[in-house]
Amino acid sequence: MAPASRDDGTGGAYARAPRAHDAEITEVGPGTPCGELMRRYRHPVEKSERLGIKPMNIRVLGEDLVLFRDLKGRAGLITPRCIHRGAPMYYAKVEDAGIRCPYHGWLFDTEGKCLDQPCETDRPEFRARCRQPWYPVEERYGLVFAYLGPPAKKPLLPRWAPFEDIAPDQKIVTDAASFSVGGDDTEELIPWNWLQDWENTMDPFHVVILHTSFSGPQFNPEMAVMPNVDWAVTPLGMQYSAYRRMTDGEEMVGVTHVMFSSLRSVPIVQLSHGVAESMGWLVPVDDTHHRTFHITRMPEDFDGVPLVTAPVLEKKWSDMTEDERWRAPGDWEIQMGQGPITLHGEERLAASDRGVVMLRRLLREQIELVREGGDPIGVHFDPSVPAYHIGAGNFYRDRMATAGA
Amino acid sequence: MAPASRDDGTGGAYARAPRAHDAEITEVGPGTPCGELMRRYRHPVEKSERLGIKPMNIRVLGEDLVLFRDLKGRAGLITPRCIHRGAPMYYAKVEDAGIRCPYHGWLFDTEGKCLDQPCETDRPEFRARCRQPWYPVEERYGLVFAYLGPPAKKPLLPRWAPFEDIAPDQKIVTDAASFSVGGDDTEELIPWNWLQDWENTMDPFHVVILHTSFSGPQFNPEMAVMPNVDWAVTPLGMQYSAYRRMTDGEEMVGVTHVMFSSLRSVPIVQLSHGVAESMGWLVPVDDTHHRTFHITRMPEDFDGVPLVTAPVLEKKWSDMTEDERWRAPGDWEIQMGQGPITLHGEERLAASDRGVVMLRRLLREQIELVREGGDPIGVHFDPSVPAYHIGAGNFYRDRMATAGA
Amino acid sequence: MAPASRDDGTGGAYARAPRAHDAEITEVGPGTPCGELMRRYRHPVEKSERLGIKPMNIRVLGEDLVLFRDLKGRAGLITPRCIHRGAPMYYAKVEDAGIRCPYHGWLFDTEGKCLDQPCETDRPEFRARCRQPWYPVEERYGLVFAYLGPPAKKPLLPRWAPFEDIAPDQKIVTDAASFSVGGDDTEELIPWNWLQDWENTMDPFHVVILHTSFSGPQFNPEMAVMPNVDWAVTPLGMQYSAYRRMTDGEEMVGVTHVMFSSLRSVPIVQLSHGVAESMGWLVPVDDTHHRTFHITRMPEDFDGVPLVTAPVLEKKWSDMTEDERWRAPGDWEIQMGQGPITLHGEERLAASDRGVVMLRRLLREQIELVREGGDPIGVHFDPSVPAYHIGAGNFYRDRMATAGA
Repeated sequence: MAPASRDDGTGGAYARAPRAHDAEITEVGPGTPCGELMRRYRHPVEKSERLGIKPMNIRVLGEDLVLFRDLKGRAGLITPRCIHRGAPMYYAKVEDAGIRCPYHGWLFDTEGKCLDQPCETDRPEFRARCRQPWYPVEERYGLVFAYLGPPAKKPLLPRWAPFEDIAPDQKIVTDAASFSVGGDDTEELIPWNWLQDWENTMDPFHVVILHTSFSGPQFNPEMAVMPNVDWAVTPLGMQYSAYRRMTDGEEMVGVTHVMFSSLRSVPIVQLSHGVAESMGWLVPVDDTHHRTFHITRMPEDFDGVPLVTAPVLEKKWSDMTEDERWRAPGDWEIQMGQGPITLHGEERLAASDRGVVMLRRLLREQIELVREGGDPIGVHFDPSVPAYHIGAGNFYRDRMATAGA
Repeated sequence: MAPASRDDGTGGAYARAPRAHDAEITEVGPGTPCGELMRRYRHPVEKSERLGIKPMNIRVLGEDLVLFRDLKGRAGLITPRCIHRGAPMYYAKVEDAGIRCPYHGWLFDTEGKCLDQPCETDRPEFRARCRQPWYPVEERYGLVFAYLGPPAKKPLLPRWAPFEDIAPDQKIVTDAASFSVGGDDTEELIPWNWLQDWENTMDPFHVVILHTSFSGPQFNPEMAVMPNVDWAVTPLGMQYSAYRRMTDGEEMVGVTHVMFSSLRSVPIVQLSHGVAESMGWLVPVDDTHHRTFHITRMPEDFDGVPLVTAPVLEKKWSDMTEDERWRAPGDWEIQMGQGPITLHGEERLAASDRGVVMLRRLLREQIELVREGGDPIGVHFDPSVPAYHIGAGNFYRDRMATAGA
Repeated sequence: MAPASRDDGTGGAYARAPRAHDAEITEVGPGTPCGELMRRYRHPVEKSERLGIKPMNIRVLGEDLVLFRDLKGRAGLITPRCIHRGAPMYYAKVEDAGIRCPYHGWLFDTEGKCLDQPCETDRPEFRARCRQPWYPVEERYGLVFAYLGPPAKKPLLPRWAPFEDIAPDQKIVTDAASFSVGGDDTEELIPWNWLQDWENTMDPFHVVILHTSFSGPQFNPEMAVMPNVDWAVTPLGMQYSAYRRMTDGEEMVGVTHVMFSSLRSVPIVQLSHGVAESMGWLVPVDDTHHRTFHITRMPEDFDGVPLVTAPVLEKKWSDMTEDERWRAPGDWEIQMGQGPITLHGEERLAASDRGVVMLRRLLREQIELVREGGDPIGVHFDPSVPAYHIGAGNFYRDRMATAGA
């Protein structure tokens, strides 16, 4: 009865069960398990230099907030609607002492304390009840870091060794563009879940296929060599070491690190020898968007953006047509194509996904640790703790004597 | 353990409870408490002069409807999909007797009665069952007023004294632009809840801050004088009287009225002496949009729009850049910034919000009255009731003898 | 007490019950009653000639899929996210043996079998578990037909007699434009439910009103003659015969067919004598969108699109302004105006809607038949079944001797 056909009818897509994303390790809103883990860390929310007299609307960890700097130079981060009657604090004006609401002129300092209510007979006890909800911020490395967690658990803002003790002929370049995920300086808001980006960092094999053999060499043609890879948990997160024998016979190892909450340090993709001089934060904007902030140690006279990839088609990403992106897709096309949050329930993880598996396990462990009242890794409260070392870089065997892994 | 810091960790935004809007006094859809109150009044839905041979899609109180005028000049308001098989009555054509559906030619009069079914053998009893749902409309002051309430409770369309007995050298100018909320003639649909706009009318203090000291004088520089204010309930709603001593020593009082369902009469913002010659309706389009219709008594030879504000930047609102709006925000920026419906649960009302508090209380009382079967204020069924007086205006003490408050 | 008024207060729109669409006969997603009926048929999803080296994102019956052709010419239809880690198969590249994922290079054939995993040590038993969900496709008449149903119920792809045995001087023209629903070649995605379009085919009376007297003759002025109509169930669906006496006294009958799952054959609307040489599929994209695919038998040297209507305003539909569409609405304006899915609960069906009523009844019967485990009409598994005959056309009494009805 059945027609002659080359298909055997098995494995079809009919009546497959609907699959979902894994909410526990991806969603970051207030009160979510991963959101509470994230709220135990400081996150960069903007470049310091962008904070002028005009307040900025920002969104981080699913919360809409207004970031400002008073005329004394102090940064503040408050809820976006005036506690009085909901006027938008984006339209507020900054003064020496804080920020003044445009509607009825209430003035708040960077900790939300109400200092003035010009349409009221002053009643200090009433003013004290009119506190604008706020979050603490701190600036370093050209970035404004916010802490959205429980006040009693506020950790110190970590220092990172590669960006301390900058030599006089060097500087730190701070960047908010989306280069590291295949975009460029025309787009900073990355429209998919942060974890797709972060776990891609622990996947050395997509570099061989996507960035080299599939789309043509987006980084370095030597990336086509299939590496031997070791993965390991570290005090701050995890790392992998990818060993390659280059076409000239040299042996090298590329070491990539991810650190909690959601940082990474990737060795230079042109494969030159040396420690990584760049580090980036992946900051969840909400469940389906994230931003990246990178700092890079550069010569003092460097003038530009530390662009990490050489587009195979010799065109900026934002200038590429849809057809050109189809011819040479990069991280942006792949990760966005995974969806706003990828459907973990549909995956078939393989041996090469060991880094992804380890990273998710580590993330679950930290989520559980916070749920049980503990402090997650990378969080500290002791000013005597030294700056964190990382260890990412490309290391060639015959140059190891001078560089060290 | 805790780091040295200028913040004391209190009053933070972490783990604040989510707050909502107050649905009872803001939502207007069919069957909602406030929607049922609103449905006891007539609301203007369009300017009469716009109603030509082309039916218009309108939305009011959350209902989509089609407004038309038959060739005999009668206005009609019906549901937007033909009762037969749902064809869009926007595409219908008007005739002497009513409006004809484009799909199968059913003809309905302004009360929805089906007069013709050209593809059917005529069966009057079937035709009678094919009645298009409709609402009564009535025209006055250049506006089409609709009544969306229970037929048995249909009140008379009120007359308003300032707009009756127009002298031969005067006329009524009817306007649908959004000037009164800080917009202009390029936008009539105001994308936030009507109550934010209405209660702003009962707030004399934002005029001092927002419209004068904060954004520069949008109305009259004398508005910078902080007034003494009295509030009072009136037979039709409520009013406030704002007393000021002007810089030249003159004493004046500005009296502003709001009337149910959602009207207002605001004295001229340039502060010239005399009774207000303008009145406006705030018409809820749906829960998150409203429109305004204003009528103004003007000289017969007036040619233009009675523009109420002088933009501080000498630019039309619609020509302002986002940055210019940031420099001089007005009612549009503030009220839109409160959100589609403001979050009442977050507010900290102060002494200066007495008008807002009173107006909300009055609104709740009227909602409750309707719920219990009563007729809300401002509704009447008796043709002998005289035209409603208002009483808004700017009154200078030394000119009171001739003007009266 | 009640005011004098010409309205009697009855039949009003106040407090009317909310009405819904009939989900059973309109919704087509996986597991829905109508969706399961639809999944027992083959549906065209794209024109064969469009399938080059670039995979195509398509949506059909509410499912997002990727359609591709391998370099050996075989078409394949798979789920859009790689079974490995969700990378978008739209960005995949085709090879001789199948399609290769851009992320980690997994290669799948047109039946979803995984042939290569370059970043893995090959383990055939693991590969076998990594099967990409797929649906069978087959090509005919210039179209790619997909089968989204249960494998055990896969029917043969029917042949249609009018398009078999094409003479040497003829050809089949295949078209995906929206002409048949009042659109044109600028739009293929029709933004409303498929059933509104299909049942409109069984409505001979809207042709008299909408397409002729209301908008001016969009087809042939003789369509203004109100026809006598017979309806009848057929082995493949149903038909109607519309009898007209033309202005020159000639008698003719126009016979229109609809066939399951969602096909139609409409005689030429210019009313010329002869059998219909065109047939179309209405393919549900999802619950609120559909596409049409038409095949037409044309002379070999025909160069163009078999455009079915002559626009009354001598303008292409896509060039018409909103006002011009209002002056001469066609099927697009009416059916889109019925809404994304029309509200069946609001309808008042009349005698002239007999075709619509019969078609919906037939559809419900087939849905019920499938629910009970049966095979719906038009489905067969026997290669010896001859090509399906239709029988649509315009037939003039005095030419019947040579043409036959």
